[in-house]
Parts: sequence; C-alpha cells; structure tokens
Amino acid sequence: TTGTGTHLLETINNSDANIDDIGTYDDFHTIDWLREMSRNRLRHRQILYRKKESFFRTLKGLHDAWSGWLVVLLVGLAAVQTHILLKICIPYKCSPPGTCAGLIDIVTKWLTDVKLGTCSGKFWLNQESCCWNSHTAEPSGTGCSEWKTWATIFGVENSNTGLTYGVNYLLYIVSALIFASLAALLVKMFAPYACGSGIPEVKTILSGFIIRGYLGKWTLLIKSITAPLAVASNLSLGKEGPLVHIASCCGNIFAHLFPKYGKNEAKKREVLSAAAAAGVSVAFGAPVGGVLFSLEEVSYYFPMKTLWRSFFCALTAAFILRSINPFGNSHLVMFYVTYNKPWFLFELVPFALIGALGGLYGAAFIHANLAWCKFRKNSKLGNYPILEVVVVTFITAAASYPNPYTRIDASMMIAELVKECGPVMQNNLCDYTASVVNATFSVVKDPPVTPIGSGLRTALWQLALALLFKGIITVFTFGIKVMPLKACAVLISPFHVFPIPSYFENVPTGLFIPSMGVGAIMGRLIGVGVEQLVYNYPDCALWKTSCHAGHSCVTPGLYAMVGAAATLGGVTRMTVSLVVIMFELTGGLQYIVPLMAAAMFSKWVGDAFGNEGIYDGHIRLNGYPFLDNKEEFTHTTLATDVMRPRRGDQPLTVIEQEGMTVGDLEHLVRTTKYNGFPVITSHESQQLIGYLYRRDLILALENAHHNNEHVLSNSLVYFTLHAPTPSLGGANDPVPLRLFNIVDLSPITVTDHTPMEIVVEIFSKLGIKTSTVVKRSLKLLGIITKKDVLRHIAQLNKQDPDSILFN
Amino acid sequence: TTGTGTHLLETINNSDANIDDIGTYDDFHTIDWLREMSRNRLRHRQILYRKKESFFRTLKGLHDAWSGWLVVLLVGLAAVQTHILLKICIPYKCSPPGTCAGLIDIVTKWLTDVKLGTCSGKFWLNQESCCWNSHTAEPSGTGCSEWKTWATIFGVENSNTGLTYGVNYLLYIVSALIFASLAALLVKMFAPYACGSGIPEVKTILSGFIIRGYLGKWTLLIKSITAPLAVASNLSLGKEGPLVHIASCCGNIFAHLFPKYGKNEAKKREVLSAAAAAGVSVAFGAPVGGVLFSLEEVSYYFPMKTLWRSFFCALTAAFILRSINPFGNSHLVMFYVTYNKPWFLFELVPFALIGALGGLYGAAFIHANLAWCKFRKNSKLGNYPILEVVVVTFITAAASYPNPYTRIDASMMIAELVKECGPVMQNNLCDYTASVVNATFSVVKDPPVTPIGSGLRTALWQLALALLFKGIITVFTFGIKVMPLKACAVLISPFHVFPIPSYFENVPTGLFIPSMGVGAIMGRLIGVGVEQLVYNYPDCALWKTSCHAGHSCVTPGLYAMVGAAATLGGVTRMTVSLVVIMFELTGGLQYIVPLMAAAMFSKWVGDAFGNEGIYDGHIRLNGYPFLDNKEEFTHTTLATDVMRPRRGDQPLTVIEQEGMTVGDLEHLVRTTKYNGFPVITSHESQQLIGYLYRRDLILALENAHHNNEHVLSNSLVYFTLHAPTPSLGGANDPVPLRLFNIVDLSPITVTDHTPMEIVVEIFSKLGIKTSTVVKRSLKLLGIITKKDVLRHIAQLNKQDPDSILFN
Repeated sequence: TTGTGTHLLETINNSDANIDDIGTYDDFHTIDWLREMSRNRLRHRQILYRKKESFFRTLKGLHDAWSGWLVVLLVGLAAVQTHILLKICIPYKCSPPGTCAGLIDIVTKWLTDVKLGTCSGKFWLNQESCCWNSHTAEPSGTGCSEWKTWATIFGVENSNTGLTYGVNYLLYIVSALIFASLAALLVKMFAPYACGSGIPEVKTILSGFIIRGYLGKWTLLIKSITAPLAVASNLSLGKEGPLVHIASCCGNIFAHLFPKYGKNEAKKREVLSAAAAAGVSVAFGAPVGGVLFSLEEVSYYFPMKTLWRSFFCALTAAFILRSINPFGNSHLVMFYVTYNKPWFLFELVPFALIGALGGLYGAAFIHANLAWCKFRKNSKLGNYPILEVVVVTFITAAASYPNPYTRIDASMMIAELVKECGPVMQNNLCDYTASVVNATFSVVKDPPVTPIGSGLRTALWQLALALLFKGIITVFTFGIKVMPLKACAVLISPFHVFPIPSYFENVPTGLFIPSMGVGAIMGRLIGVGVEQLVYNYPDCALWKTSCHAGHSCVTPGLYAMVGAAATLGGVTRMTVSLVVIMFELTGGLQYIVPLMAAAMFSKWVGDAFGNEGIYDGHIRLNGYPFLDNKEEFTHTTLATDVMRPRRGDQPLTVIEQEGMTVGDLEHLVRTTKYNGFPVITSHESQQLIGYLYRRDLILALENAHHNNEHVLSNSLVYFTLHAPTPSLGGANDPVPLRLFNIVDLSPITVTDHTPMEIVVEIFSKLGIKTSTVVKRSLKLLGIITKKDVLRHIAQLNKQDPDSILFN
Repeated sequence: TTGTGTHLLETINNSDANIDDIGTYDDFHTIDWLREMSRNRLRHRQILYRKKESFFRTLKGLHDAWSGWLVVLLVGLAAVQTHILLKICIPYKCSPPGTCAGLIDIVTKWLTDVKLGTCSGKFWLNQESCCWNSHTAEPSGTGCSEWKTWATIFGVENSNTGLTYGVNYLLYIVSALIFASLAALLVKMFAPYACGSGIPEVKTILSGFIIRGYLGKWTLLIKSITAPLAVASNLSLGKEGPLVHIASCCGNIFAHLFPKYGKNEAKKREVLSAAAAAGVSVAFGAPVGGVLFSLEEVSYYFPMKTLWRSFFCALTAAFILRSINPFGNSHLVMFYVTYNKPWFLFELVPFALIGALGGLYGAAFIHANLAWCKFRKNSKLGNYPILEVVVVTFITAAASYPNPYTRIDASMMIAELVKECGPVMQNNLCDYTASVVNATFSVVKDPPVTPIGSGLRTALWQLALALLFKGIITVFTFGIKVMPLKACAVLISPFHVFPIPSYFENVPTGLFIPSMGVGAIMGRLIGVGVEQLVYNYPDCALWKTSCHAGHSCVTPGLYAMVGAAATLGGVTRMTVSLVVIMFELTGGLQYIVPLMAAAMFSKWVGDAFGNEGIYDGHIRLNGYPFLDNKEEFTHTTLATDVMRPRRGDQPLTVIEQEGMTVGDLEHLVRTTKYNGFPVITSHESQQLIGYLYRRDLILALENAHHNNEHVLSNSLVYFTLHAPTPSLGGANDPVPLRLFNIVDLSPITVTDHTPMEIVVEIFSKLGIKTSTVVKRSLKLLGIITKKDVLRHIAQLNKQDPDSILFN
C-alpha cells in the first residue's frame, strides 16, 4: 500500500518533488496573492538572517536585492527584440548612420513588399532599401527602376495593362494566402498559445491565473516568426498587441533565471507587468504611455515599486529601440508628426464628434466581434480553422488590392493620413485645386484654403471605401479560431503535455493598428469636411475670429490622429494610457486637449452601449476567472447567499484535525476536485483550525511516503502542533504523520452576514482565492485598531510608539 | 434624566442632528474606507431605485452621474487660480495677445521685484512690465531707465557707490523682513493651517485622516495671500508645494457643493486626489507628471476612475494655465528649454554621479531638517516662532543680496542655469574666452569648446557660494514653526473652534524650488567641469568618438536640469512622477534617459541612508496615523501580540446585545474614549455580534432622546433584530430602544494567530480602521472561492454563471 501516494501525482513526475514545491499551483488555477507575498517575505527574511553568515551569503543577499532591477533590464533589452542576440544588422539603407532594424520589423517590411514585387538581383531587399541607392528613384519614394512588380518579372508588363494588373493582383493574393496559411500552420503545429492578440490572456495571467506554457519559449519563438507573416498577409491586424505578449514571454523566461521571481507567482507578475509596459513602449515608442497602459489596462496588483521598475523597463526598451532606429527617423515613435498650426477652440466640436463616432464604432465592433466569436464557438465553423484563415485572407487580399489605401500596410496608411499637407507634399490627399500656386508656398508656412482637387476627391472616395471595408473585415479577423481541443493537443504533443482549451485563435492578431486605421480614415474624412466647411463659410461666427481670411486653420492630419485615438479608445476603453500614448506619438503637449476630448467622448459613448472593452469581452467569452477590480459590486446579497454548501447540498468536505489516516486523505484527494479543504477540530464542534491546499496535501503525502517507508495507508495524520511520539513498536507499524506546518492557520474568514460588496472588495483587494465563511458566533478575544498597527510598526522599527497620536 | 443625552454632544450643537449624521467622523480621526464605500454604494442604489419615480428623480440621477466630472472640472478651473473669479487681467505686457497673469503669479513677481526697486511713476508694475514698452531697455532685459533701484529713488545714486549699494542692500533686507513677518502674522492670526508645505498633511488626509478646516476656505484665502509674500521675502522656499495644498482646498470646497462627494469621506478623497494632480499640473505645467505625482506620492487609494478624472482635472488646469500664459512663453511649463545637442553615452557617468550626489544631499537634508524640527519642538525655540521667522529671513536676505544668483528669485535662477549657451547669450555663465569669435556663430549651431572666461570664473565662484548657502539655509527654512497650541487656539477663535495641534509651521513653505535650485547649481558646476575636461583631454577614449574635435558636445544646461531632478528626487524620493515632470519641463523625450539615470541613482543613494522622503519624515514627526502602503511589513509577529487588551490589562469595554440601559451606554461614552465598542451576546459567551462606532452611538442616543420623550435613562437598549414590543403601561414608563440598525454586523475579523504581515496588508489594502480579533474556534459554516464570487457576479449581471470555468 506504500505506493498509493505516487499515482496521485500524475501531473508531477519529478521524484525530487520536495517541500519546496509546497505552495506551487496547478495549471489553470488561480494563485493566492496574500500567500505568495507571505512566502516572499519569508524568503527575504531568511536571506537577511543568513546574510552575516558568510561573504557568499552577503553576495547572495546583494544579488537578491539587485535581481529586481537586473531582470527588468534584461526584459527591457529583450523586449525590443525577441531576438536581441540574433539581431541582424542588414547593411541596407545605411546612409543614416546606424540604421539597423530589428528582425521583426525588417521581416515584416520585406514580406509586405514582396507581395507587390521584388528587387531585381537583390531579392532580400525591401522596396525602400532597394531604391535607397538607386539614381532612378522617384522623389516621392514610390519606386525605382530596380524595384520590379511581379508582372514585370514575369514579362507581362507593357504588353497589356489589364494583364499586368491581373498578374500583380493574383500574385498579391497568392503571397498573402501563403503567408497567412504558413502563420496559421506554424501556430497550429508548434505553439497554439502563440495565436491571437494575447492581451486578454496576459491580463488574466497578471490577475493571478496560471496558464503554463502561455508565456513559454515556444510561444515566444513561434509568435515572433508568425507575427510578421500575419501582418504581411495583409489581414486586418497589427503586431502591436502581440508585442505585448512577446514581451511578457521574455519577462517570464527571464524571471525564471532568478528564483526570487521564478518561484513566486506574485513576484513573477511584477516582472510581467514591467514586460507588458516594455511591449507597448516598443510597439509605439511611448515609454510613459507603456507604463500607464500596463497600469491601467493589463496589470492587477501594481505596487509603486513595480511602477518604477516598469518605467525603467519601458525606458530601456525605448532607448534601445531608438538606438536601433527601425522607423528610420530620429524619433522613438511610429508615426512622428509635428503640426505647424495650432488648433482652435471651435474645433473641439468636431473632435468631440469624432470621439463619439469612435465610441460608437468601438461599441459596434465589440458586439459584432463577440457575437461572431460566440457563433464560431458554437457552430461547425470552429472545426475548420485553417479554412477560415484562408477564406478571410482571400477576401481581405482580393478586396484590398484595388484600393491604394488598403493595399499598403495599415501602419503606413495611418502614417500617411496623419501627415499635414505641407508645401512639398505631392500626393492625392493634398491635391487642392490651387496646386499651381503651391510652388510659391515654400516660404509661406500657412497655405490658403482652397477647394478640393480631383486627386483629393478620388482619395476621399477610396478612403470611404477603405473605411467601410476595414471596419467590417476587422470584426471577422480579430479572434480567428483554431482547431478544437483534442486535435490540437495531439498535434502539439511533443512540446506540450497539457490540455489546451478549445478557444485559442490561430493567427497572431493585434487590434491596435486596425482600429487606429479605421479611426484615422474617419478622422481624415471629417477633417477635410471641416476644412471645406470653413472654406465655404468663412464668415461663420464660430471660426471667424480664429481663422484669418483665406488661410487654412484646419489640419486634417490632426483629425486623423484624433480619429485614431477615438476608435482605439472605443474598442479598448483605455483612457489615460491612450491619451498619453497618442501624445507621445504626436510629440506635442498642445495636442493633448483634442486627444483628451476625443478619448472622453469615445469612452462615454462606448460605455453607454456596454461597459466592457474588447479584452474584457474576450476574457468573459473565454471564461477566465478575472475579478475586475475596476468595477464596483453594487448588489445587496450576503455571503450566505454565495457560499457553498447551499441548502440541501452535501456537507462541506473537510479534514479533521485528528483521527484521519493517510488512506482517508488519499481517498479524499482522489475522489474530490476541490482546491483545498478546511481543517476543523471535529465533526461535532465544526470549529475552524485552518485551510489546507490540495496541492500541498498531495505533495506532503508524496513526500512522506518517499522519505519514510513506515508511513502507511493506516498511519494517522495529525494536523496539530504536537503529534504523539511514534510508538517504538514493530518495525512495520504505521508511523503517525504530523502535517501541521502545511496548514494555513490564518485563512481569511468572513461571517455569513457580510455583504457581498465587502466580500468582493476583500477578494479583489487582497487577491485571495478562498475565504472561509463562519457563523457570527465567534468568541471575542480582542481588537486591533489602525493605531495599534502603526504603533506596533513603530516599535518594531525601534521608533517611539507614542509618536502615533491619532487613530 | 431625559437631558443627559444632550450634554454628551458638546461637539455637535446642531439640534437637527438626525440619522443622516450616522457614519460621520470626529476631527482627528481616521475614516473607514470600506464603510464609506458601502455607504456610497447604498446611496447610489437608492438613486437608481428611485430614478423611475419621476422626471425630477431621473434628472437627479443624471446630475449624480455627472457630478464626478463636474467637480473635477471646477477644481481644474479653480486650481489654476485660487481666485479664478477675481482673476485680474492687468493690461501690462500686452504685446503678446492675451497675456494676463493669475493673481499669485503677478503678485509674486511684483513683490519680488519691489525688493530691488520700483517703476518710476507706475509703482504697480514689476520690472519686466515696466521695461516692456521702454525704448531704453537693455537687450538682455536686465533693466531700463524707467526702472529705478531704491537707491536712485532716495537720491543717493551716483553720489557714492558704497552708499548706493548700502541703501539698496538695506531696503532689500527691510522689504524681505516686512513680507515675511506679514506672511507669518497673517497665517498666525487667521489660518494656522495655511502654514508649511501642506503636502505631508494632504497626504495624511488622503490616507483617510480627518483634519477639519485644514482644507477650508480660510486656509485657502490666507495661503493664497501669504504664499506670494513668503516667496517674495526671498526665504529659501517655493510656492509649488503650497499650490498642491491650495488646489486641495479648492477640491474640498467644491466637493461640498455635491452631496455625493461632500458627505462621503472616501468619495471626497477622490476629488482631493484629482485636485492634488491639478496643483502639480499648475505648478509645473506638467499634467501627466501631476497625475503621476498624485498617484505615486500623495494619494492612498487611487482607483482607475480617479486616475482618469485626475487626468482630466490636471489637463483642464494646464489648459487654462496655457490660456492665461503667466510664464509669458507659448509653452505650458515653467522653464521650458530645448537643447540643440544630443547627449552621449559617456555622459551617463557624470549624470549618475550627479544623481548620487543629489541622493546624498537629499539624505543629509532630510536628517538635518528632521533633527532641527525635533530640536525646535522640544526646546524653547518653539515658543518664539515669529522671532524665528524674522531671524531666518534676516540671515537669508543679508546673505543673499551680495550674490547675484541668490539675490534673484530661485525659479529665475534655475531658468538661467538650465539654459543652453547659444550664440547670442550674453551673460557670465556663457563667458568663454573665445567670445570674440562668437559673432560669427549666428549660423553655426555647434560652437567650438573654449576655455573658461573670466566672467564664467566669477559665475562659478558665485554659484559655489550660492550652493553652500542655499543648501544650508533650506534646512532651517523648511518647517519654520508657529506658536504653541493654546495661544494659537485663542488667537484664531473667531474662525476655528477646534484645537490645533502644536506642530504647524507658520510660513507657507514649499520645497520643490529650493531643492531644485541646489541641484541646478550643482549640476551646472559639474557640467562646466565635464565640458572643460572634454576640452582639455579631447583624445580620451570615452568621448573621442562622440565629440568631434574642437566642438562642444557637453551642454552644461542639461546637467543643471539633471541636477535639479537629482536633488528633488533625493529629498522627496519621488520616482516616476519626478522623471515625467522633468521630462515635461524639458519637453523632449530624448533627455528622459539622463533624467531617469539621475533619479535612479539619487533614489538608491538616498535610500541607503534612510528609507523615507521628507514628507514621510514630517508625517512621522507629527505623529499622523499614516499606514504606508508602499512599505512592506517584514516582521513575524502575530495578531495576538498587537491586540488589546494585553495580558494583565483591563478587559475590553464591550456592549452587550441585551440588558444594557440608556444610562449604562451614556456612562460608557462619558467614561471612555474608544472609537467604538464590540457588541457581544453576553459576558459569559463573549460571542461577537458586531461593532458599534462611538459617534454613531452618541448620535443614536441623542436622536432617541430628541424624538421620544419616553426614552429615559433606565430604558433598555436592544441590539437585536427583534426588540420586545413596548409595554403599554404607564405614560412615564421607559420605552425600550432598538439600535440594531447602527451596529456594523460584518466587522473585519482576524484570528489571534494571523501573522501581522497579513493584518497589515488587510489594514492598508482595505483601509479599515478597526479589526476585531477572535479566537481560532469558529464554527465553520461554508466557504467562498473566487470562482463562486465570479459566478455570483455573472448571475447577478444576468450572464451565464457556468461561463466561469476555472478557479
């Protein structure tokens, strides 16, 4: 019977499992923050205690103190690049010194361009690099003789315009399909967790949930490879969200280098919070915005210490990014713009309108996307994930190519849209009729307003179509689903031994860029509208004083930026972090007020149609245990309405302090699935002693069997401070087992009459997993006030406790 | 005996005291956040419930929902100006359109200048305005013929240089003394709470402490008047810290306009957090930095909702400030600088050095200042506060005048020091020997490095002396003390009826500008040193590659900025908010890395010599009940070690559920000073029922006496759900009183074996005031897990509870 303990541990095959593992968690379980923080303090005390023992111990203490900074430094460095070590410094576009791009950025650019053509003789160069040193380059950078479209390569150019177009079109679609299917297959085969945006899951993990492998090295590797593929396939998705996931993977991997962080789930999440900040910092070149994003949107417990380290991490990442300079300008940011003209108070009206429209779009998007995901989940569609990817990619590519604004990368489109029309701008968006006069504007900073030219009219039509198309296709793209559970688990068996829930998507999809794209188009359209309105009615009282006659005072580019903020806000319901990120993108404090106005209206309008952002929606859809600490619990139920057992249920499975045998406990573990068991004095008195976690019990029993062969099935187990001394009888007699030390003696308890609003507060603020409910018939012992606590702290810190005067 | 209840209520003379007052707090007491939030939810539920009753109710509900935004908007508007309504738009300096300065800024400038001289014929103009339209103005803006020093006015100019100097010197000192004593007297007489920086107290109030009148209208008025006086008196202090206090006063006053905020201490603190953010936003023109300052340094509970509203508030304030434009440049900020030159990696070494020195200074300052304040508190010095102000002002003024860098306002000095030396700069700080060649530099952006000129040498000496002087005098200035308790209370009796504790200082003193000044001097000195080092050893490997031969690559102005950040960080131990504020001051993302480096080293070095910032030090010195949620409790004590009663103490004062009379309770209230009493079943069983707050008990008894004359001293009081029906006996028979509804039935309880680290966590995270301690012999009833909570929430929100899959 000695062996019965071992087969309890199907999940833990490591026979070295020792007491250190007490306090770890099973997969798909929630951690107990209070307990983890206690464990960390215990560890810290031990280090302090042993510090004076030897020089080595002192060093170890120092290392421990430093490791917090070291790990975020490493994460910051790594977050810039998933492969900072593999960083390739391709010697193209080397005129600006030190222009080396990171792997993801370079590959994305190349793959995006390869859909359109190739560089003759130098297939590894993207269009920009190909034309960099060319003397035939067109001034606007749209192409050069070295850069050939596929039609030219296949020799059909010049023979027939229709045929040329057709070949280019076909190859565009084919390459998009290849990239998308490759990405989907890679994800499917090697790392199903690499799919999707990752932010809902990262958010859930940060709130204290365990998903083993979700932030692992395979996920990191595959996501880094497939993210560029997915973006290049022209699907309506971005790599900014996935960058947060990738950065979190880096954080998780580096955390395991330091036992302080790797072995404590609460401390590990501090690193992950910093990593998420670094991810956004890298994605947008916005370190402050990244920290606020992590604080507001992703993180759960965010102590000030973490804030400071996250900031360091985000800044390191931004700084390295700046040194690498993948965007090719001297600024950190993705679409750096400076506007020459200020904005005027009357413009707050269109900005608010844009904000409201962004909020409406966000609400509609969230509802449509969630409905589509739910339909996919519950219908046969979910069984053909690769087919779905192929179909969506085909539709996207086929519909994108004819429209120049959807043909190019979404982030390039946004960069185009947020630009101001300067005197030298020569694209359709800036085609006003008076363009002949424009030649003289090189010195005038403030060109007069003119009516729309034919180029701009075309552009507006194309933009309107692009808006419609992007707005719709994104709904179907965000959350493309992967095959059902079992096929998946079989396929990935060499790498993962755990079951994968069935609702992971399979293309790495980010939502930032697509929703910003929709908003930028909308904003630009409205901006041109307002501009023409001001032109046509120059005497309107609203703007008469601000706009000097005949001079443009409306910047459509700024409207595009505001629109991008509005839709992003509507979809994600970010607030401060959104404004700060956009502010860091524009680089000017003076545009923060328009952005704020748009973000506020977007949030208000969006919230009117449903309180949750897209990430919270997906968290709920996936059934993750996420207790939102931003939402207030407003109902009047009591703890007794919520607690188990309900009336008529089986009585609670409990452990008695004395009298149970090893066999009883093993039976208990085998037959129940509870995460833990209350320990009581006896079934008669039902007095609560403490709480015992299932996993701790399993490990302790396993350990006892392993260390002492006299622990038999009929050994008595004592959960008391003093177990009877083992009788020195026969050698085969069962030895009693004392397991008092694994019982949590101070579980959080509430009374049955406690309002649930307070219980929710306790759960979310303290981050506990379980609370025992007791009857309001406690023997009162004493009382602790805040003053007592403060005096106690003062006393322990060798300060005068009487200096605490008030309570 | 009916009247015995009334004289219990010496503090509450309002006979209309009704049940609404249940739940309010006494002065110098701590609030219970959990309870306040519950009260707010109850109020919110009532509004929702009654919303459909009538149109008026609907409007009231809408008003309630909007009031959160409205109040922060009002605070934001008001924070710019304590007197936005009294804002005077002085028509001076009107060439830049709309240049109207706020009262405080204008008065400060005028008072500062009036120490040096006056404008002939227009005494109400300050130097800048006086010379604005003058044709005789000197190009550097140092003076004009209309602006006359006091010596000229008194006719001693030109006769004797020594005499001129003497008269100016004397009048400088005299005016400084007048301003300082006036400020001190005003504060002493009308609003003793207007003294000091206010940040430690605001921080304490935000953590849940009640100091009535601290944020009142008198404090606001007097502080707004005396802050300019104190700054103008040339004491080593700034008005930036006090602006936080002033803004908080605005927040408090506006909160009272909305019952949602005015009548709920927890909700009120949300407004105060936003107000503190607006204060910093106004002080530095840094809205994002202001929010982070509020989040990191001042606030205690900072839910995301508050973050967003604080941001709105801070932004409103910054926007209004920009419209008023008191700094006279088009930027929001105090010392806006843009540097032409980038910084180089090798410079991180001097930046780190500056950071370390700043941390050292901060630690030394904190220790010295706290020691001096403690000495003042415990010696006779504390009895002569006005004398102390006069002496310190005299010493400061006498020592300041001879040195041009201390003679001027500290913020002007900082603005001077952080400037880059451009081709047209013509002051001592930029006097390099090759200045003759400078004429040709108007097109060269990058002047060559040259050795120090005689002007710069003088400037360096003066700066070194200024550094020494400022560093020392600030220690004695921050925290100048007011007269002892009783005199104070008598003096201010017409306005305040409550006792004032004895440790309030009496000149409004801010610490930001003085410590930044010290740092800016230090930074500039080191910057010039590094610059000359690079000049003298151009071939050193460290900078050879970065600095092209003969060209300056070191910007001493940037070093001054970094130095300011370092000392401010060392003194206050701010982290993220410091970096963001300084980043907003410089306006360039690229200098954020040097600032970060300095802030990090400053904090590390500072923390090595003591973990607390100056504000925490003063909080501790004053004995405020502030439970720092940033610090971890690392000891191993148990709740039983902390709770009252200790072994050998009197037993706990408790209330029995049944059997006590009104007289007993009145006796209890009269003879004890406890904030509340546990309610137990009986002295025999000692089973805990709930907790009853003293103030609630007093109000309930008062109320009962008031409403029913049959409630007599010998009326029995029942704290049970069902009281016996009153016997319909004689008309004068005592009526039993049922007070079950005022008992808190779900007090937070911990067991006697709960580690104190968990108790501390519970107190700081939940913000409770009292926890009852019970013996680990609870009758177990059931259990609640996080999953149960989530399912419960899902169910109440009409969602599928089974969608919560994991625990």
